[in-house]
Amino acid sequence: MFTMASEDITALMHRLGSQARAASAQLAKASAAQRRHALLALAQRLREHHAPLQQANQHDLDAAQAAGVQGPLLDRLRLDDKALQTCALGCEQLAAMSDVVGEMFGFCEQPSGIRVGQMRVPLGVFAMIYESRPNVTIEAASLAIKSGNACILRGGSEALHTNQALAECVAHALVAAALPAEAVQLVPVTDRAAVGVLLHMDQAIDVVVPRGGKGLIERVSAESRIPVLKHLDGNCHVYVDDGADLAMALRVTDNAKTQKYSPCNAAESLLVAQAEAAAFLPALGAAMAAKGVELRACPEAMACLQSVANLQVKPASEADWATEYLAPVMSVKVVAGLDEAIAHINTHGSHHTDAIVTRDHARAQRFLREVDSASVMLNASTRFADGFEYGLGAEIGISTDKLHARGPVGITGLTSVKYVVLGNGHVRT
Amino acid sequence: MFTMASEDITALMHRLGSQARAASAQLAKASAAQRRHALLALAQRLREHHAPLQQANQHDLDAAQAAGVQGPLLDRLRLDDKALQTCALGCEQLAAMSDVVGEMFGFCEQPSGIRVGQMRVPLGVFAMIYESRPNVTIEAASLAIKSGNACILRGGSEALHTNQALAECVAHALVAAALPAEAVQLVPVTDRAAVGVLLHMDQAIDVVVPRGGKGLIERVSAESRIPVLKHLDGNCHVYVDDGADLAMALRVTDNAKTQKYSPCNAAESLLVAQAEAAAFLPALGAAMAAKGVELRACPEAMACLQSVANLQVKPASEADWATEYLAPVMSVKVVAGLDEAIAHINTHGSHHTDAIVTRDHARAQRFLREVDSASVMLNASTRFADGFEYGLGAEIGISTDKLHARGPVGITGLTSVKYVVLGNGHVRT
Repeated sequence: MFTMASEDITALMHRLGSQARAASAQLAKASAAQRRHALLALAQRLREHHAPLQQANQHDLDAAQAAGVQGPLLDRLRLDDKALQTCALGCEQLAAMSDVVGEMFGFCEQPSGIRVGQMRVPLGVFAMIYESRPNVTIEAASLAIKSGNACILRGGSEALHTNQALAECVAHALVAAALPAEAVQLVPVTDRAAVGVLLHMDQAIDVVVPRGGKGLIERVSAESRIPVLKHLDGNCHVYVDDGADLAMALRVTDNAKTQKYSPCNAAESLLVAQAEAAAFLPALGAAMAAKGVELRACPEAMACLQSVANLQVKPASEADWATEYLAPVMSVKVVAGLDEAIAHINTHGSHHTDAIVTRDHARAQRFLREVDSASVMLNASTRFADGFEYGLGAEIGISTDKLHARGPVGITGLTSVKYVVLGNGHVRT
Repeated sequence: MFTMASEDITALMHRLGSQARAASAQLAKASAAQRRHALLALAQRLREHHAPLQQANQHDLDAAQAAGVQGPLLDRLRLDDKALQTCALGCEQLAAMSDVVGEMFGFCEQPSGIRVGQMRVPLGVFAMIYESRPNVTIEAASLAIKSGNACILRGGSEALHTNQALAECVAHALVAAALPAEAVQLVPVTDRAAVGVLLHMDQAIDVVVPRGGKGLIERVSAESRIPVLKHLDGNCHVYVDDGADLAMALRVTDNAKTQKYSPCNAAESLLVAQAEAAAFLPALGAAMAAKGVELRACPEAMACLQSVANLQVKPASEADWATEYLAPVMSVKVVAGLDEAIAHINTHGSHHTDAIVTRDHARAQRFLREVDSASVMLNASTRFADGFEYGLGAEIGISTDKLHARGPVGITGLTSVKYVVLGNGHVRT
């Protein structure tokens, strides 16, 4: 079911591509009011169509259960009332945000007399390849509409009925705003071959955003002929500096590690300046013991942690410094001070998000400048690395690439700028 | 000579890569004053070392002549007094420009209380692969120093002695500013295999900039494992709108086509609104005839051009609409009006630079918004599409990509931004 012969898949994908390319021109020149209208129509439709959407979702849930799926994987597939309300609210929040498409800025008159500035414009067409959570369909569609891009969505095969029902809501909302329904298209087949074809459609698609496990992201990066916006590991650090407020350090470390274990912005490694190790680590160890977090410690940290009651602690291996646990485990290392902390983070980290807890201005400035990560933080939990927390309104993902978009990627990350030159018959001499 | 066994080349290139990566951390944290010092020391050394530099250049010129190179190719290889003065002046101009590295901007307080903004930082290491002109060595080195990046330079084999002498000046200037000499390294062998190794060094190099003919750019794009900043064709258009000032249209079209034939921002195609064709085309034809420019015309344009004395004109083929001539040839098409002009440019153009000549505000706005090119111009010659003319100070090239950097790429295009989060012990709830 939902599978096809490979020549049919190729033809289908190319048709989706050329429809998306054509629709992108319409969306790019649509007014801000039209795109706002589409977002509000989508929110309304999601609110009004709970019953059929949940019916489609139940179809997927039943099939998944019959196939033996259970626990968190089944939960991720579920589109309950609350998830639908959140989707609708997200669309309304995007509709309320000011529009960035067509923004013009930076105009300066040059010695020749021409005035040169830039205009923000949509990228054109993005493709998103994602795993089971069906609400991503609405997040991606609404970001596409707001940013003036067309998109092609390839969701998880186990969520196909739900995604198709959601995509119908999107199409309806686009048409209600006099925009082409083909601006947001869902790949209607579950064949893996469809992804292979899609990743070679560099004429039709400007950027690919994979969202899911590491296997998916690595496959997309290796195979794609189209630029990829991606994030790989999130091996985030908290560094507790000499003379830090240790109560603050404990609060920040605890939150960064334990507020949620699975997100990429959860801390995986704690670095402590030698001067604070004896005072800080026993308190930290006690807090982690209370939450059942296992520590993997360097010998010096081990000496400070060994007497903490009920703490699971064992020696760290070299591999621990580079490991993203996504679990109640944290590596702990005592460092001489700032220089060693920065060198350790830049060597073993994943350039995602790293925080310093300090009172010292000069060392704070050096940490922020010299740690080569997408987000660097002073006296704040790494858990803040998120498009909503950064005020971007919504995010399509978090990029650990340095080119184009780095860190949480919102609407601006889905746009480009072009130069605009205004003259009055000016010619070059 | 200057060739090696392939295992030696691999080892050599990886050594250059790790030296560049190490040097990049030093350069990224260097002060603006240090980088300014290095640029001024480089300018001084170029001015004071005319004689040895020209001796090295003569060595390359003699070898090229002995190999039968002549004409423009030999001229491009020559590093005369004037070229050296221009290189030195370029370094001094960059030194005088304000520094962008470490710039912090956009800080806003979020509902959680954290303050979030961004910091501009170097990309790390770029590689540049270029053909014969040796002054590109100084342009790339000085842009690297100003932008805080390390770089690996691979010049044309016929310019190796000249480039080595220039690279020695750069190394001297870096050391004079207490910066690592390895921040700018020239590949010291001419083997093509070195490029193959370099394009796979994605751990050591953040971005590759090919600069040269289409063959080079296509090879680099196809083979590279590293993101590429590139420009392909420059099939630039001038569209003369209904009711345009025809004297202005003639001045702009003539300049865009004939001020220089070889640059990528020279116009290759003229579109004329039907209402103006009979009045405009004979005058344009006469101007082109006077300069020996051949026109390739659609049937309707042909009818307006046939009676122009001494004009070389022939029917355009479908291929002409997509051709970058880089020569005294221009295609000419009569279009119904703005809609057809925009559609034609977006279909047949190369998304580089396109201009409209008009008096109409609404149509000007639509052209600027809807033409999907790196530079869009109103009443100005396409020849202005250039980093210097845009006030960027210097350019590493012109990008026709949409991601990261589009249009002339200056210092900012060689940087990334990271998010900076300032808290006071803030945690996520």
